[in-house]
Amino acid sequence: MKRVGIVDTTFARYDMARAAMDELKQLCNVKFERRTVPGIKDLPVESKVLLEGGCDIVIVFGMPGAKPIDKQCAHEASSGLINAQLFTNKHVIEVFVFEDEAHNEKELADLADRRAREHARNVYRLLFKPEELTKLAGTGQREGTPDAGPLRR
Amino acid sequence: MKRVGIVDTTFARYDMARAAMDELKQLCNVKFERRTVPGIKDLPVESKVLLEGGCDIVIVFGMPGAKPIDKQCAHEASSGLINAQLFTNKHVIEVFVFEDEAHNEKELADLADRRAREHARNVYRLLFKPEELTKLAGTGQREGTPDAGPLRR
Amino acid sequence: MKRVGIVDTTFARYDMARAAMDELKQLCNVKFERRTVPGIKDLPVESKVLLEGGCDIVIVFGMPGAKPIDKQCAHEASSGLINAQLFTNKHVIEVFVFEDEAHNEKELADLADRRAREHARNVYRLLFKPEELTKLAGTGQREGTPDAGPLRR
Amino acid sequence: MKRVGIVDTTFARYDMARAAMDELKQLCNVKFERRTVPGIKDLPVESKVLLEGGCDIVIVFGMPGAKPIDKQCAHEASSGLINAQLFTNKHVIEVFVFEDEAHNEKELADLADRRAREHARNVYRLLFKPEELTKLAGTGQREGTPDAGPLRR
Amino acid sequence: MKRVGIVDTTFARYDMARAAMDELKQLCNVKFERRTVPGIKDLPVESKVLLEGGCDIVIVFGMPGAKPIDKQCAHEASSGLINAQLFTNKHVIEVFVFEDEAHNEKELADLADRRAREHARNVYRLLFKPEELTKLAGTGQREGTPDAGPLRR
Repeated sequence: MKRVGIVDTTFARYDMARAAMDELKQLCNVKFERRTVPGIKDLPVESKVLLEGGCDIVIVFGMPGAKPIDKQCAHEASSGLINAQLFTNKHVIEVFVFEDEAHNEKELADLADRRAREHARNVYRLLFKPEELTKLAGTGQREGTPDAGPLRR
Repeated sequence: MKRVGIVDTTFARYDMARAAMDELKQLCNVKFERRTVPGIKDLPVESKVLLEGGCDIVIVFGMPGAKPIDKQCAHEASSGLINAQLFTNKHVIEVFVFEDEAHNEKELADLADRRAREHARNVYRLLFKPEELTKLAGTGQREGTPDAGPLRR
Repeated sequence: MKRVGIVDTTFARYDMARAAMDELKQLCNVKFERRTVPGIKDLPVESKVLLEGGCDIVIVFGMPGAKPIDKQCAHEASSGLINAQLFTNKHVIEVFVFEDEAHNEKELADLADRRAREHARNVYRLLFKPEELTKLAGTGQREGTPDAGPLRR
Repeated sequence: MKRVGIVDTTFARYDMARAAMDELKQLCNVKFERRTVPGIKDLPVESKVLLEGGCDIVIVFGMPGAKPIDKQCAHEASSGLINAQLFTNKHVIEVFVFEDEAHNEKELADLADRRAREHARNVYRLLFKPEELTKLAGTGQREGTPDAGPLRR
Repeated sequence: MKRVGIVDTTFARYDMARAAMDELKQLCNVKFERRTVPGIKDLPVESKVLLEGGCDIVIVFGMPGAKPIDKQCAHEASSGLINAQLFTNKHVIEVFVFEDEAHNEKELADLADRRAREHARNVYRLLFKPEELTKLAGTGQREGTPDAGPLRR
């Protein structure tokens, strides 16, 4: 059975991991290994440990704030996550929701829930149906917001 | 036969991979291995896996948005792609088209198509005709837009 | 007995390491290894040396200034700390307090003390009670400032 | 005989490689290995391949545009070039001329020619006369523009 | 006898290396290995070569200009220096003086001289008296400018 690592933070304000696991369970039968760390900069090493411990893929969840320093932290986390992937040759799907992507708390929670679920579907495809991703290549898919769609010529 | 890895995203709004493969087929006989990932930050590890799996070169395609955070994502992806190359000693040709490079969807699609095709020619040259690249050294070549040409003195 | 590395700087204006060690001693019985370096850019290598020398986790403390160049130094230090973790597969908990996070010296000292102590509790949980972190996943925890709490829908 | 790697781009608008090789030939007897790649982000891996293939040093030439995204590309290329050096323990001398460093095409071409030649002299010194560099330490040398000179007290 | 690597640039406008070596000689008996490179982006690999060649620590000296592109170069150099440390598990003490830190050339030279000397003392402490650094932890030490001191509560 495929093993899916789940890493989230105590900093985020919505339990995206639960939403993603709920979605994945409806799509396939996988084994979860869940870890929680304080903040997004703690995600890279935890992801690497899970991948080297046998997980086939990892999904990470984070909710950076709206200030410039938060964008910088997200940049550091994302760069570290890419390095974790390069060290292990496995994917880490990053689900980040920035606080300034929504106008109020309800919108932000809804966005976080949808993005987590739609990225769970990406994880499912990467593990079991890569050909579905290629069918969607260049079609303007978005996670949590309406798809942009292919360019109209 | 040379093997060319192709990695694109479901996020992009134009099928640049198809354009590039079409162009390459007119230039040479190579074997393609195509993978599609959700977004540009997923390109580095997929490229590394293909290069270590026997591809001689990889072309990646992405279409980052126009917001500052999109530029940051592109920066993270590009840095990861450079690392993937340094780890494998092979080239990854990055074909990124930024949404703010064109004024409307048609222009953007046309730009994406041309850039994909012109970079396909770069891949052909890197694989089979490196001396053609040296003939073009310092001549202000551009991909998808008119060449800047050599400086006039 | 678990070994906890402590690395701080002579640049910072508050002894956060002492506060964190005081807090940790009230929570558990661990062995400390403390090192002090000049500035935050010296933290990554010192952390790596401690982790490779047997520490199970490291906490680092820094107090970057308020100018853009200080933010850049913090960025370099944070990136290096993430790399140190990826090289060792162990956590480094980063406790940084930016000078512009408070309005006066007393507020800044209080913030630094609280953040150091709250991150000490994160270290305790990572070492001994990871399930407590998962209970707090997505609940908007903050270190040194009031918790943001989960999103209200 | 020392081997000097030369890597330039088809993107640049001046043949800086030729200028540098011409200058080096007047200073010493070395063997050149020249490669041309499409853009500056392709320089790091090509440099690493040359260094691992026996070159003692590499000079790279690039001419980034004047837009913010061009500065970002230059940043990615420079970071990759530093990594290529760290992986091989050999120098890569980076000769970049930014389009906004000059007021017109003639000035830009002249600047590019001078900078390429002056950096060729740096390569000569690194290979054969390191003590000449130490004599110039802290004296405000510039490549392609007038030297700033040592600080006047 | 401890070996101290010294790497500086021909770009800088003050001989900080000489000031630092003069200061260190008054504090302890060490063997110096000095190298000079063109600019700050050449410092990382030279530092790594010295550290792997037996130096116990390296001090590097640089004087970046005041323009945004100079800050970017400094960022690239600093990141590379942190990587050089992570690869070797030894310290590189970075002594950078930015041109916009002073109002005139005399002030800048004085600042550079003082900063070089004060960081030489940091090198001395890291090599021989680490406990002195811990006594100074969190006390707001500055190099080349007046100490900020500990926070007043």
